[in-house]
Amino acid sequence: MNFSSDNVSPVCPEILAAIAAQSEKSALPYGQDEESAQLDAAFSNLFETDCCVIPVATGTAANLIGLSGLVSPYGGVVCHHEAHINQTESTGVAFYGGGAKLLTMDGPSAKIEAGSLDAFLSAHRNRPVHAVEAECVAITQATEFGAVYSVAEIQDIGRVAKEHDMRLFMDGARFANAIAALDCHPAEITWKAGVDVLSFGATKNGALAVDAIILFDKTLRKTAEKARKRGGHLFSKHRYLAVQLLAYLENDLWLKNARHANMAAKLLAQSLGSLGARVAHPPQGNELFMWIEDDLAATLQAAGLVFRPWPAVGKGAYRFVTAWNSPLEDIANLPQNL
Amino acid sequence: MNFSSDNVSPVCPEILAAIAAQSEKSALPYGQDEESAQLDAAFSNLFETDCCVIPVATGTAANLIGLSGLVSPYGGVVCHHEAHINQTESTGVAFYGGGAKLLTMDGPSAKIEAGSLDAFLSAHRNRPVHAVEAECVAITQATEFGAVYSVAEIQDIGRVAKEHDMRLFMDGARFANAIAALDCHPAEITWKAGVDVLSFGATKNGALAVDAIILFDKTLRKTAEKARKRGGHLFSKHRYLAVQLLAYLENDLWLKNARHANMAAKLLAQSLGSLGARVAHPPQGNELFMWIEDDLAATLQAAGLVFRPWPAVGKGAYRFVTAWNSPLEDIANLPQNL
Amino acid sequence: MNFSSDNVSPVCPEILAAIAAQSEKSALPYGQDEESAQLDAAFSNLFETDCCVIPVATGTAANLIGLSGLVSPYGGVVCHHEAHINQTESTGVAFYGGGAKLLTMDGPSAKIEAGSLDAFLSAHRNRPVHAVEAECVAITQATEFGAVYSVAEIQDIGRVAKEHDMRLFMDGARFANAIAALDCHPAEITWKAGVDVLSFGATKNGALAVDAIILFDKTLRKTAEKARKRGGHLFSKHRYLAVQLLAYLENDLWLKNARHANMAAKLLAQSLGSLGARVAHPPQGNELFMWIEDDLAATLQAAGLVFRPWPAVGKGAYRFVTAWNSPLEDIANLPQNL
Amino acid sequence: MNFSSDNVSPVCPEILAAIAAQSEKSALPYGQDEESAQLDAAFSNLFETDCCVIPVATGTAANLIGLSGLVSPYGGVVCHHEAHINQTESTGVAFYGGGAKLLTMDGPSAKIEAGSLDAFLSAHRNRPVHAVEAECVAITQATEFGAVYSVAEIQDIGRVAKEHDMRLFMDGARFANAIAALDCHPAEITWKAGVDVLSFGATKNGALAVDAIILFDKTLRKTAEKARKRGGHLFSKHRYLAVQLLAYLENDLWLKNARHANMAAKLLAQSLGSLGARVAHPPQGNELFMWIEDDLAATLQAAGLVFRPWPAVGKGAYRFVTAWNSPLEDIANLPQNL
Repeated sequence: MNFSSDNVSPVCPEILAAIAAQSEKSALPYGQDEESAQLDAAFSNLFETDCCVIPVATGTAANLIGLSGLVSPYGGVVCHHEAHINQTESTGVAFYGGGAKLLTMDGPSAKIEAGSLDAFLSAHRNRPVHAVEAECVAITQATEFGAVYSVAEIQDIGRVAKEHDMRLFMDGARFANAIAALDCHPAEITWKAGVDVLSFGATKNGALAVDAIILFDKTLRKTAEKARKRGGHLFSKHRYLAVQLLAYLENDLWLKNARHANMAAKLLAQSLGSLGARVAHPPQGNELFMWIEDDLAATLQAAGLVFRPWPAVGKGAYRFVTAWNSPLEDIANLPQNL
Repeated sequence: MNFSSDNVSPVCPEILAAIAAQSEKSALPYGQDEESAQLDAAFSNLFETDCCVIPVATGTAANLIGLSGLVSPYGGVVCHHEAHINQTESTGVAFYGGGAKLLTMDGPSAKIEAGSLDAFLSAHRNRPVHAVEAECVAITQATEFGAVYSVAEIQDIGRVAKEHDMRLFMDGARFANAIAALDCHPAEITWKAGVDVLSFGATKNGALAVDAIILFDKTLRKTAEKARKRGGHLFSKHRYLAVQLLAYLENDLWLKNARHANMAAKLLAQSLGSLGARVAHPPQGNELFMWIEDDLAATLQAAGLVFRPWPAVGKGAYRFVTAWNSPLEDIANLPQNL
Repeated sequence: MNFSSDNVSPVCPEILAAIAAQSEKSALPYGQDEESAQLDAAFSNLFETDCCVIPVATGTAANLIGLSGLVSPYGGVVCHHEAHINQTESTGVAFYGGGAKLLTMDGPSAKIEAGSLDAFLSAHRNRPVHAVEAECVAITQATEFGAVYSVAEIQDIGRVAKEHDMRLFMDGARFANAIAALDCHPAEITWKAGVDVLSFGATKNGALAVDAIILFDKTLRKTAEKARKRGGHLFSKHRYLAVQLLAYLENDLWLKNARHANMAAKLLAQSLGSLGARVAHPPQGNELFMWIEDDLAATLQAAGLVFRPWPAVGKGAYRFVTAWNSPLEDIANLPQNL
Repeated sequence: MNFSSDNVSPVCPEILAAIAAQSEKSALPYGQDEESAQLDAAFSNLFETDCCVIPVATGTAANLIGLSGLVSPYGGVVCHHEAHINQTESTGVAFYGGGAKLLTMDGPSAKIEAGSLDAFLSAHRNRPVHAVEAECVAITQATEFGAVYSVAEIQDIGRVAKEHDMRLFMDGARFANAIAALDCHPAEITWKAGVDVLSFGATKNGALAVDAIILFDKTLRKTAEKARKRGGHLFSKHRYLAVQLLAYLENDLWLKNARHANMAAKLLAQSLGSLGARVAHPPQGNELFMWIEDDLAATLQAAGLVFRPWPAVGKGAYRFVTAWNSPLEDIANLPQNL
């Protein structure tokens, strides 16, 4: 049982089948194929609003290209200190943003709070040219500490952002897990709440390699497409990105996979709890952070569980991430089988 | 019969099978998996020298990241005016190269000639800080006009480059087709001739989406890996890149596919020639440029052939590209079946 | 007599006096001082239109910052192959332009011709994302080969540029010499002809170190100011830039200095011609290119003349540049005094 | 009495005279003149070690170009949160550093403490490619809160930096004030303590506009010169930068001016203290931060004193900066004359 990340999981059968189904025919390259042509409609239908879809193969590319349209080379992107774009994407925001800078905040469970954001933005606007002005707010849903913003929390953030004339970006590498947890419509926490651009993750949740940049502001399309090409992210065999996404949406596979992963996380929390571990960040989506004594950690590892210490939470804290294929029964039976 | 590019072809069966074979198991991400661990050895074996392999999903990424280690932000990359990096990769060289500039030359069949290169480099070295100094030479094998540099031509270019202290990069998006045409060992036209970095194409020749940056100068590894991550090109499910490349090398699939495509191009040249078309650039690899009268062009299109006008060659010129799956018999029978 | 460039000349007395006059008092920094506050009005008065002025200390900074507002990181700047921004400003256009690329054309005397430009722009617009689209045209007035565009020529270029939706930039490092040669109103060859941004040179023509970016499109101001600060070009003691420019405009010092330099170039052409040199590019402004035999060149050098061979014009060609302080009498008497 | 910054002061007489003395003669451009040729020797003599000097016109340019040679596009520059490069230079570090990121620390009086630095560097090295590794440490001497690192403090920082294989940069915009305060040899707190590059400020301390990048690691020269040119900071009339620096060093003018300013700050602290103000950060150099009640602040302003609130220190805190020309007697007599 490998809980080191959800990206250790393989491609799920439905998506593999969609890839395999392309193997007999030729198709025009660079998104001119039939399947790619369906993407805008498919996501517009899902989100119940007209939007543009720019598929890329990695979540980092989705974040960096998506953000690059929302900030100038002289501006700042406000994010939580723990945000993936700050901790785990090298100097990518400055790279794709032509120098744009991350302006970091704190907040519980890697969440930005609307009140703190309001104060932070007030202090980072209308500044002289010497200073970096905030131009964009970026939040992660679900967060890097496994928390899920409530609908109201995101609405509040969106309202504050707009009051300060900020663009709003959402890193949705685990967006499916968040929607599965909230059981709300995806529109509620995105464009209806003021999100301009969303990176809609699929790779961690069953795809081979595809995340979609969703542009709710369609004027951003042309520049995003240029940024994608220049970054080397425009696939020639683009249909192989498209069919992954279409299969991911079909029959709500994305939610089915996410619900499975979320359920696995909850079961794992129970199993670990019954063994004496204590919750550090509860599993609202598919990430779970637990305080575990050394003895128990060693026992779990000896039993074949793979998981990682997470110093950003604290010494003795470990992260467990479940996925669309996590074995529910084994997880539930973990205490008995140790 | 779609000859608009080799990237219209689907993934070939052997590579699809290798992808599918990963579908039952978990694996560590970001290249820490078993299959990724085999890449250096597999390519070192192929090239008969120790080298490093950095897989990415597109040829543009392979070129841009590969080049970025060979030129400073203040330097120039010497290439043919028709080079893919000059014509078809947006402002990517400056992007990944921190501002690096393309210094373009001419030459027949999109080839750089060693004599011209020598003169060009003499004029673009030891310059004051105002001017851009050449730091690197980039050639495409096979070229954008379907020509294949001979072993001697590449050796001459390599010698000239080294005499001028230049780095040497090879865009090998169609490297397999070139090797199939030359019937030489891949070492002959790469590291033995002075090539520092090669982008080894697979996507156009049967892969789903993978090209490999081959670093013959292993000191470039660390920076290339950082450039890849920052560019958003480090796959979490990295094994899916690795298995494509391993399958591509196994049993010389790369050469088998390329030989098929090259044969198809030769057959197509004959068939088109018998119909009255004239060769503009002969098909040394899998690209064929033909002068075709309007009537014939219309007839061919009506018969279902897809191909593109190529104004860079001239008015009335068309490009045809064959692939690993081009139907040899149909191509041979084209004149009869029109 | 040093004719190697006009930048070998010292600051002229009027401008030095203006600098010295600041030496008794304190003043607010970064352009908040009284003198800086007068710049917009002074140049708006000169050009008979509302414009913004961003002073910097070098012509390269003026060009690069001025251009950076007119082109995107994915776009191209169309210029003559001999343009200073292409030949003599390192990789600066890509640096300040976030990757923007130079798309070079040819033309006599380093001039772009309107007809060629029309064809060139037609071929470089509405391109797929793979290619670089032209977004801006940059001309140099007077050109790098000492030619001066006529009013009609610039009007034609402006018309063509606007027909193609291009921005128009003018490198006016020797703008004063051009106006002195044309004897036209500065508005005629700038905003009235469609120029969006002008780098208005002063350093070569009597200033210590200041060139002004003139924004005829005032919406560019905020970004230009940010680009200037980020580039390290915002002077704390900004008044020292301002007073140079104010003195330069006062009593048409800029034109007086330029007329002197232009006259010197004409006299020098006559003197050199009488000695057997032949004109390569006639001195419309203050630059003169001459074909000179080796013997004569040696004689001139022995007599203390400093001037430079100019291989871009041809073997045996030399460049002479006169300045505000070139000794007219000595130049006229050169043949007698050799 | 304007204490809003030391950059409100004019050029001092000695430096103005040096500029004026250039007004009769021609000189080769771009640093090929006689005066520029003396810079390396003059500073090597001052620092008692061979070093290279790259003059630029602003402190921001000196910092950004100086730093750009010490960090890769993927790396981090460790600095204090209050550092000028973090607070007051836009996104310049990423611009000149190709994306390089600031990694900020805290510490009293805007100082980095060696112990904290050691821990911080331990946590920011040997990281996977996802994260940004520290590559360089940047300190400001005197700091942004007017403190002066002791010789021992800088030696400790240098030792820690070298133990972690870090490059060490010193922002010396007020280096003269620091040396005047410490009364030590300039070598003690620079190259002898491990500083690789120093920005040696002159503009705030009597120059018109010049700061020198001092490269104690001479291998950095070529790249620094290219970075300067590309950034638009290479003066054509380079001698005007050189003569400012030569005059600044001559007869220890730099120290004379700094001692004056430091003395003025001490006197001002006494005068303000006697009026009821309390010291927030004591004036070790020429910056003074005071807590002042609203009534007193209003009285001082009414008396013609110019000074700025400094929210980074706290509400009710004000910054006063003295300069080479601050009127000592008026400052001493301030209480009597209010």
